[in-house]
Amino acid sequence: MNKNKSWKSKLHEIIYEADTPAGKWFDIILLILILTSIAVVMLESVAEIGDQYEYELGLAEWIITILFTIEYLARVITIKKPSEYIFSFYGLVDFFSTIPKYLSLILVGSTGAFVALRALRLLRVFRILKLARFIGEGNQLINALKASRAKISVFLLAIFMLCIILGTIMYMIEGGADSGFSSIPRSVYWAIVTLTTVGYGDIAPVTALGQFIASIIMILGYAVIAVPTGIVSAEMTKDQKKVHLNTQSCPNCTANNHRDHAIFCYECGHKM
Amino acid sequence: MNKNKSWKSKLHEIIYEADTPAGKWFDIILLILILTSIAVVMLESVAEIGDQYEYELGLAEWIITILFTIEYLARVITIKKPSEYIFSFYGLVDFFSTIPKYLSLILVGSTGAFVALRALRLLRVFRILKLARFIGEGNQLINALKASRAKISVFLLAIFMLCIILGTIMYMIEGGADSGFSSIPRSVYWAIVTLTTVGYGDIAPVTALGQFIASIIMILGYAVIAVPTGIVSAEMTKDQKKVHLNTQSCPNCTANNHRDHAIFCYECGHKM
Amino acid sequence: MNKNKSWKSKLHEIIYEADTPAGKWFDIILLILILTSIAVVMLESVAEIGDQYEYELGLAEWIITILFTIEYLARVITIKKPSEYIFSFYGLVDFFSTIPKYLSLILVGSTGAFVALRALRLLRVFRILKLARFIGEGNQLINALKASRAKISVFLLAIFMLCIILGTIMYMIEGGADSGFSSIPRSVYWAIVTLTTVGYGDIAPVTALGQFIASIIMILGYAVIAVPTGIVSAEMTKDQKKVHLNTQSCPNCTANNHRDHAIFCYECGHKM
Amino acid sequence: MNKNKSWKSKLHEIIYEADTPAGKWFDIILLILILTSIAVVMLESVAEIGDQYEYELGLAEWIITILFTIEYLARVITIKKPSEYIFSFYGLVDFFSTIPKYLSLILVGSTGAFVALRALRLLRVFRILKLARFIGEGNQLINALKASRAKISVFLLAIFMLCIILGTIMYMIEGGADSGFSSIPRSVYWAIVTLTTVGYGDIAPVTALGQFIASIIMILGYAVIAVPTGIVSAEMTKDQKKVHLNTQSCPNCTANNHRDHAIFCYECGHKM
Repeated sequence: MNKNKSWKSKLHEIIYEADTPAGKWFDIILLILILTSIAVVMLESVAEIGDQYEYELGLAEWIITILFTIEYLARVITIKKPSEYIFSFYGLVDFFSTIPKYLSLILVGSTGAFVALRALRLLRVFRILKLARFIGEGNQLINALKASRAKISVFLLAIFMLCIILGTIMYMIEGGADSGFSSIPRSVYWAIVTLTTVGYGDIAPVTALGQFIASIIMILGYAVIAVPTGIVSAEMTKDQKKVHLNTQSCPNCTANNHRDHAIFCYECGHKM
Repeated sequence: MNKNKSWKSKLHEIIYEADTPAGKWFDIILLILILTSIAVVMLESVAEIGDQYEYELGLAEWIITILFTIEYLARVITIKKPSEYIFSFYGLVDFFSTIPKYLSLILVGSTGAFVALRALRLLRVFRILKLARFIGEGNQLINALKASRAKISVFLLAIFMLCIILGTIMYMIEGGADSGFSSIPRSVYWAIVTLTTVGYGDIAPVTALGQFIASIIMILGYAVIAVPTGIVSAEMTKDQKKVHLNTQSCPNCTANNHRDHAIFCYECGHKM
Repeated sequence: MNKNKSWKSKLHEIIYEADTPAGKWFDIILLILILTSIAVVMLESVAEIGDQYEYELGLAEWIITILFTIEYLARVITIKKPSEYIFSFYGLVDFFSTIPKYLSLILVGSTGAFVALRALRLLRVFRILKLARFIGEGNQLINALKASRAKISVFLLAIFMLCIILGTIMYMIEGGADSGFSSIPRSVYWAIVTLTTVGYGDIAPVTALGQFIASIIMILGYAVIAVPTGIVSAEMTKDQKKVHLNTQSCPNCTANNHRDHAIFCYECGHKM
Repeated sequence: MNKNKSWKSKLHEIIYEADTPAGKWFDIILLILILTSIAVVMLESVAEIGDQYEYELGLAEWIITILFTIEYLARVITIKKPSEYIFSFYGLVDFFSTIPKYLSLILVGSTGAFVALRALRLLRVFRILKLARFIGEGNQLINALKASRAKISVFLLAIFMLCIILGTIMYMIEGGADSGFSSIPRSVYWAIVTLTTVGYGDIAPVTALGQFIASIIMILGYAVIAVPTGIVSAEMTKDQKKVHLNTQSCPNCTANNHRDHAIFCYECGHKM
């Protein structure tokens, strides 16, 4: 059977799967490439580095773009129904994260606008990880979140409304000329900053009444954070797999419940 | 039976319930109207927008006020005992969130004071949501919170007292001339800001001893946040009986959340 | 039996217990007195109010002090073994929170130092609440905390050590001339502020490496907060036996929290 | 058997274990020495104290260094396979936390660089605590964390990626000339500061759109913190078998945490 496999199906196995050594190497190289690409985007944005190493970073970006183009074409060719890949979530991510450098040839001077497109490449990391070892753990997390999605939505909606009402009240109390509470949207922003316990301090109440209400909001936020936590905790405590216990038994004295990696029996010293 | 229904009972079904297509449409339109109204209140408060589009925003407010007035009158007419609706929580919310624009005709120049009244409209969103799909999830959340209400109250009271004592201690340590700890209430405010991990930074200890005590408060707050979370988590992991409720509302009194297949209202015994 | 009760035992019942109407009224009046007293302490500390109403606040303080003195003497007289009360925790709190005004007669001009003593009065609120309705809920909370005390201690110790190590590292990276990281203790203070997600912003890293390490500390703190929460959650989800306790207090010793229908004191065996 | 014990094995028992009175005293003295040493390092870093008491602190450091050297040599001598100790984690910590003062004799003027090495001494506290009473509690905590290690890793990775994407978006929105969002790495740093609810306020959005997205990040962070908490809570609510471990340490290899009444070492089979 293996011999009958065309080069297409072999390449498909390497690119889309991670069970063969070649597939694993492909994933590792791709991962390095993605992380390098993200590093290039980041370094470009730092004014001093971006100016000094403009040529080197541009070159690196071109090399990465060409390699991603090859990968994209390989993905399209090796799949039986190319449209299935092209219009899938990761297909679109691959496409839009590859084209910015080509577009910069046509639209000179506006490369800055494509930075976000290039940052999309980071999403590709999830595809590689999905193929790799974390799949089980990730699924458990996602399932717990999915199961509590409706409850968390209701909770966040209630929090958001609470912030609008509290923001409006604070706007009426603190909303002076020089205060940070210059409009309701800004006051709502402040209420969110406070209730979520972020607390930048760029806007802070100065009147006694304002500080009193702020205190109530903070204590409220402190108590309310228990709610999403309770939701997810309750969801995750459901259907728990029991941890595998070491059931080894000593061949000499039958003592059991040995520690993991025990080499000798703790009772009789017999080798296990 | 359906034929015998008067226009009043039909309108009642549309306005107070969400089981018929017409009732759903009514709710969706009302939801859009409420959100538009809140957006108008917010935009008015932003100085630049409020000044530039004064006429447009005033017009929008008048249209919304008139539509809300019609809705209010319809609610009063279609219910058998109007007083039950008028003096219910949502009845009062509806009334006070509708009148500000009328009052502004009489009391010229003091529209600012009515902003909070208009923000009350947001509370109406909860009524619509209560009728809609989130009813089950919301009930579970509210039940979990109700069940742990007493514990959370005790906890918050203890936190509040702790903040008063810690604030007094910090006032004695840091309370210098130029420091932010100028009075005990302000120091208590700081203690709440710190213990809840909000941390604005508008008031921060500067002496070594003050910073040492602040560190202890922070670590305390970090450990203490576990308590409300533990309470709610414990409550939510308990098995909760799911009672199937629908969005029907009694045409006689305003009681809702009836069980499926309920034939008589559980509040007043009126046939449904 | 009731007739044989002396005025002392009747007064004991009123002061130390909350089961009779008179006992409840005594508690409510005491609660109002304590809260008024705390309000007076707070208002005195606010410069503008303290200066303007110096006479009124001083008078209020004298009235409260005299009422507290009467209460203290009544507590001493009505108990069989006065020394048990006097040297108990609440006995000492009562004593030290009553004397500041008397001391201010002797030591003129140093009233500021007694503010903390007067704030002690707040602790008395817990005694009243202990007698009241929250007894069951409070006990559950305290038991859950007691049961997880050892685990939380280990956790906080580990957090504190982590902060010392991280603070030292940040001192070596950021500790320049103008930076906020001027010494290891200050850097440790910063590490605590960051790890507990308080984040004042009075000290913040400015170098790229410092910000990178700060990011790691923050994400660490974000993950680590799960630990105390998990401890308390696990403790509270355990089935807790509910023991019905009442607010009776032994007339012989000060032991309270007796079981319902208890005939003899569990501490001293005295008939109740 | 006890009589046959050589002075080496007696010293081994004192140094490596905490079951005998001598062993307990050794641990307590060592703990005091370590904490004194850390205090010296801290005080040296405070400019005023470091300059004024330079001689005293230097002397204290020499005394501590010599005592630690003696302890290190005693540990090497009393163990059967010295290489097992020397290259173990605590062996390396002991070595590198002892040498800085000796190195400062050779490399004059660069003592500052050894501060971090001296802070390593704090890690030794964990060894002593491991031998002491907290062993059971600490093990439970560590087991719960180990069991949820994979899930927490996936979670933190996802959070980190989210921060990179959100940071890039904010850089494009807020990244003006004077804004704090001067580069993508800085914006990512801000996203981490915000999502973890630390909120320094050294960088804060100023545009309306930026504040809107910041609000979403905060509410996201508020909901997302439930995830690690849920993971650990779920792990800790599982029934954990309590395995009784003691503080004995194998005299042959450095393995410890043996079961009570264990007769042979589980690692090397040596008689205990």
